[in-house]
Amino acid sequence: MAGLFITFEGGEGGGKSTQAARLARRIAALGREVVRTREPGGTEMAERIRALLVNGAPEALSSTAEALLNHAARDDHLRRVIRPALAAGKVVISDRFMDSTRAYQAYAGDCPLELVAALEREVVGDTVPDCTIIMDIDPAEGLARTRERSAGAGAGTSTGAGAGGAGQGAEDRFERFGLAFHQRLREAFLRIAEENPQRCVVIDAARGEEEVAADVWAAVAPLLERAAGAGDDGGEGGPVA
Amino acid sequence: MAGLFITFEGGEGGGKSTQAARLARRIAALGREVVRTREPGGTEMAERIRALLVNGAPEALSSTAEALLNHAARDDHLRRVIRPALAAGKVVISDRFMDSTRAYQAYAGDCPLELVAALEREVVGDTVPDCTIIMDIDPAEGLARTRERSAGAGAGTSTGAGAGGAGQGAEDRFERFGLAFHQRLREAFLRIAEENPQRCVVIDAARGEEEVAADVWAAVAPLLERAAGAGDDGGEGGPVA
Repeated sequence: MAGLFITFEGGEGGGKSTQAARLARRIAALGREVVRTREPGGTEMAERIRALLVNGAPEALSSTAEALLNHAARDDHLRRVIRPALAAGKVVISDRFMDSTRAYQAYAGDCPLELVAALEREVVGDTVPDCTIIMDIDPAEGLARTRERSAGAGAGTSTGAGAGGAGQGAEDRFERFGLAFHQRLREAFLRIAEENPQRCVVIDAARGEEEVAADVWAAVAPLLERAAGAGDDGGEGGPVA
Repeated sequence: MAGLFITFEGGEGGGKSTQAARLARRIAALGREVVRTREPGGTEMAERIRALLVNGAPEALSSTAEALLNHAARDDHLRRVIRPALAAGKVVISDRFMDSTRAYQAYAGDCPLELVAALEREVVGDTVPDCTIIMDIDPAEGLARTRERSAGAGAGTSTGAGAGGAGQGAEDRFERFGLAFHQRLREAFLRIAEENPQRCVVIDAARGEEEVAADVWAAVAPLLERAAGAGDDGGEGGPVA
């Protein structure tokens, strides 16, 4: 059984955590081991770095410093969680990964693109996701949803168990960047999808949760079948005794 | 009056903070404005990043993650403190800067050299120090001095006022890496000096404080005179009224 690496990406309020949790439950129900995680974060050190990134004032750090902090956290996350899980044949589902740094700090921010490319090369290396679901939504609607979620304080759009649900109350730094930033961000994710058609799927996240989940499943199911076959050395009936 | 950027580099226990404080007092006595600072640190965010770097277990982070955290802190330090001070014609004296990342994380650690080079290019840019004093000492002796300092708990080698003196009690993470690491570190700083002869001066830091201070002054004094002249448009008697 080969490991499978799935990431959810996109701006605020697109329902990444909700869909990641649903997908994790559905895959686990098939008997596959699933590791659900998030970025920035996923390890003790990475969560400490996350606190520097998401709790500060909007102008706290330059885009370049943010990109470096994100990739420092990512390096720890990859070494301790993602690569060992994939090597053990598990399915890893991460709420955000490398594309968020490229979108927030390079395409929508002003971190030099060459630096982000160097970071992807040296930190991520060949641990590029097998499938990236880009949750696309009009930023005005996405931000409104996020505000509802904050006001509801845990009720309503529960993200279920897992890494994504806890302690997001004060993590509103990027939400406060203004609509023009979030418009650039939406375009940034669509550009990433265009540049990486082999792994990215753009999903209209403005629809109901069930409809979105059906599209997510349609994108992931073929990869799961392929991954299940890959570990059997290509044979159809498993090894001959 | 042109700004002047002086950095102190080297392994543990070489007396960087002590000599930086002495040099700062001597330059200030000439009537120049001096900003004394340190890395990682020098700003609120950079000090928070420092806490992640110096207080953890030796194996807490990879060399690559450490290099990224150091340069994230450096970016903030450069933007908020170093570049504005240099632009205002001040003398900036920093206890550690870019060479420490290259030495600790690339030459003595295993962060890819190309990544450190990219970080220097994108984060430091042309704010390379005018003068780098490399305090060279046998690591066995340097580490012994550091342990004495910790045992003395503030008495003895006072670093005077400034950023370097406070809160170093528990900052012993790199001291615990073992002698072989510190031997590589010494060679790393000597290699940096060889590669950058135009700005680096290696000083034998095993001698007494007064002798070392005299050598530091011999390295810095000519640059101070040149910097004082540079701001006067090359004239000898100042502007004509």
